[in-house]
Amino acid sequence: MAYRRPRGTRDYLPEECEERRAVLEGLREVFELYGYGEVVTPAFEHLELLVAKAGEEVKEQIYWFKDKAGRMLGLRFELTTPIARIVAERPTLPKPIRLYYIQPVWRYEEPQRGRLREFWQAGVELIGVKEVWGDAEVVALLVNALKRVGLTSFKVYINDRRVAEGLLNWAGIPEEALGDALRAIDKLERRGADYVRERLKELGAEPGRLERLMDMLAEGELTELAEVALASRAREGVRSLEQLLEELEDAYELASYIEVDLSVVRGLDYYTSLVYEVKVSGLEGLGSVAGGGRYDDLIELVGGPPLPATGMAIGVERLIEALRAQGVLPQKRGRRGVIVIPVSAQYRRAAIRIAEELRRRGISAVVELTGRKLSTALEAADKRGFRYAIIVGGREVESGLLTVRDLEKWREERAPLSSVVSMAAQ
Amino acid sequence: MAYRRPRGTRDYLPEECEERRAVLEGLREVFELYGYGEVVTPAFEHLELLVAKAGEEVKEQIYWFKDKAGRMLGLRFELTTPIARIVAERPTLPKPIRLYYIQPVWRYEEPQRGRLREFWQAGVELIGVKEVWGDAEVVALLVNALKRVGLTSFKVYINDRRVAEGLLNWAGIPEEALGDALRAIDKLERRGADYVRERLKELGAEPGRLERLMDMLAEGELTELAEVALASRAREGVRSLEQLLEELEDAYELASYIEVDLSVVRGLDYYTSLVYEVKVSGLEGLGSVAGGGRYDDLIELVGGPPLPATGMAIGVERLIEALRAQGVLPQKRGRRGVIVIPVSAQYRRAAIRIAEELRRRGISAVVELTGRKLSTALEAADKRGFRYAIIVGGREVESGLLTVRDLEKWREERAPLSSVVSMAAQ
Repeated sequence: MAYRRPRGTRDYLPEECEERRAVLEGLREVFELYGYGEVVTPAFEHLELLVAKAGEEVKEQIYWFKDKAGRMLGLRFELTTPIARIVAERPTLPKPIRLYYIQPVWRYEEPQRGRLREFWQAGVELIGVKEVWGDAEVVALLVNALKRVGLTSFKVYINDRRVAEGLLNWAGIPEEALGDALRAIDKLERRGADYVRERLKELGAEPGRLERLMDMLAEGELTELAEVALASRAREGVRSLEQLLEELEDAYELASYIEVDLSVVRGLDYYTSLVYEVKVSGLEGLGSVAGGGRYDDLIELVGGPPLPATGMAIGVERLIEALRAQGVLPQKRGRRGVIVIPVSAQYRRAAIRIAEELRRRGISAVVELTGRKLSTALEAADKRGFRYAIIVGGREVESGLLTVRDLEKWREERAPLSSVVSMAAQ
Repeated sequence: MAYRRPRGTRDYLPEECEERRAVLEGLREVFELYGYGEVVTPAFEHLELLVAKAGEEVKEQIYWFKDKAGRMLGLRFELTTPIARIVAERPTLPKPIRLYYIQPVWRYEEPQRGRLREFWQAGVELIGVKEVWGDAEVVALLVNALKRVGLTSFKVYINDRRVAEGLLNWAGIPEEALGDALRAIDKLERRGADYVRERLKELGAEPGRLERLMDMLAEGELTELAEVALASRAREGVRSLEQLLEELEDAYELASYIEVDLSVVRGLDYYTSLVYEVKVSGLEGLGSVAGGGRYDDLIELVGGPPLPATGMAIGVERLIEALRAQGVLPQKRGRRGVIVIPVSAQYRRAAIRIAEELRRRGISAVVELTGRKLSTALEAADKRGFRYAIIVGGREVESGLLTVRDLEKWREERAPLSSVVSMAAQ
């Protein structure tokens, strides 16, 4: 019987793992440069925690199950909620708290481009800073992390939930329909303007203002909002977007990466004000490569003290797909490593002893264990991309000099082990 | 409402994550020195794959659920079976294949010391070498990986399933009860000799030979087996254990780490010959820190070509507990990093610009964003273990010289940014 991996999941083999790891280590480096510390949380949580403030749509995407004690558990679909739980459980942690994670999450969705059922997120949370400069730090870290791994032509599209809600109010959507209306707007890109228009009409938008609203979603700027009669909460949102832009310009010199986009609202319910998404020019079909925002109520909601918080997450597979599309990946991987080949079975242990000595000196070495003949073994070593093959027979064991074939330059020399170490270490 | 993490799981906060990562990177380094390449597999697999050759007991420990299409999925409880699937799906991968993984697995068991419901495994698989020197490479890699991260006083206790089955046959256990009898022996340490004796009696052991068998399980050596009338398969097992010992001595000089223990049989059904466990002297209550063996049928069983294979896995949490018990962890973590503190809100952006410059030069820097007064901020910075605090006010902005307080030596100086970089980089 043959088995396949589950739909919407991926296996990563060595070459791809190495590529991914290089990207992830680049992100990690930037997270740590900003003083964030890593957290690792369980793959599953109590289901009630996950759905506490996730929003209807996400609930349907959770893989859940009962354990034998009858408790409902669910695989985490993002890391912000588990981290909110961690902080809520530990009220004495000194504030502000700066945490990062690089972990898989699971969502039961229809697999398509940029949408897997298991995917990785690399993100940070800054907990305990209520002012806009907390958001600015996280956005700056995000931009610098993406730059660090080589991404270009991207922008952070920012908005504020208070502004979005103010606009929807102005267009006639009643308070109780705001959640549904935000979720409709969140689908603008995937389902198109007609879908959103229809949905907002159903939810109570006045036809006259609806068209103006649709225009602003399409290309609205902050300045336009002044003409619209916004409630004071919405005006606070506008002001805080302006402050964020100013902080990112003046303190971080990153304004060119930022753009206001009134159609950005994000799918998760827990955001309270700032929301943003990163999109890559020319790769809009991929969806957003990263997203984030402020969630000032979540930690209290899951049982902690009232604590303002802001964070972002990068979709690792989407980022890697974008890097690949931009020609940043794959990095050309040079030949490397050493394979030690005994000329016959009687020299196997001598070959192993040489490999062990190389490893002790920090050189990666494989021993040819198959017993195939030398020429076949050398061909296989060449194909696999080894840089050096060390051939071990009677002459080598007696003289203590190794026969080293450089598989790149295809030349051979006899050298002591120490020279092989310096050659291979380069 | 307050939420807790699920029973039998753990959260890892920054300090512990860092400690774990140091251990995991040490293991990874050794895996790569032996030329193994990383694989990452999905958290869940089709349930039929997981139970294909897991054994009754493990089946009950799988977290499983149905997806919306009605497919039965289960969280992986080890990595050997998923890797067997990967290899089975890709018959053209050049052999031998050397793979490693560092990933969490899940088992629904009663949580106790050394037994979590979510725990991490770091292991390797060597696929395509049928001879005992393949096993020797994996055992040597295991010993060197454990030595590399600082573990001492440990031994690899080896046995061969063919020997165990031969002994059970000799004692009168019929063929069809061998699986149950092996599982009974696997519980010797946890449940004691009386339990095993009783169970083997139930399964058909002859009283006379049972006592001799119990003695051999307790302290049997290979030499004793000669007196017992073993079938030829069992004698092959004895010979291959002898060859393994010889290879580990002669090629790797590791014989002092290896001991034959006829009571080691392992809980998983897929092992075909060699089995082993690592135990740490004085920490027997922790259970085995690592285990492994040869599984020559598994890849064919999951739909691949017939391919001999051998591998091992280290239990990461148990290893870390052992390292902690041996005083290797925690490593004393020195003060480090820089915090940049503006003397008042008006210097916040100046402080951020200095932090950004430090980060560009590879120095980890946090900006004090709370607005608390300088003395409180310095106390908090001291408590958190920063090495340097840079204080930013009017004098610093005008002169370009920074006020740097060394929180270890508790002294202050004025220096240009470049000097701070060289101080902090040390």
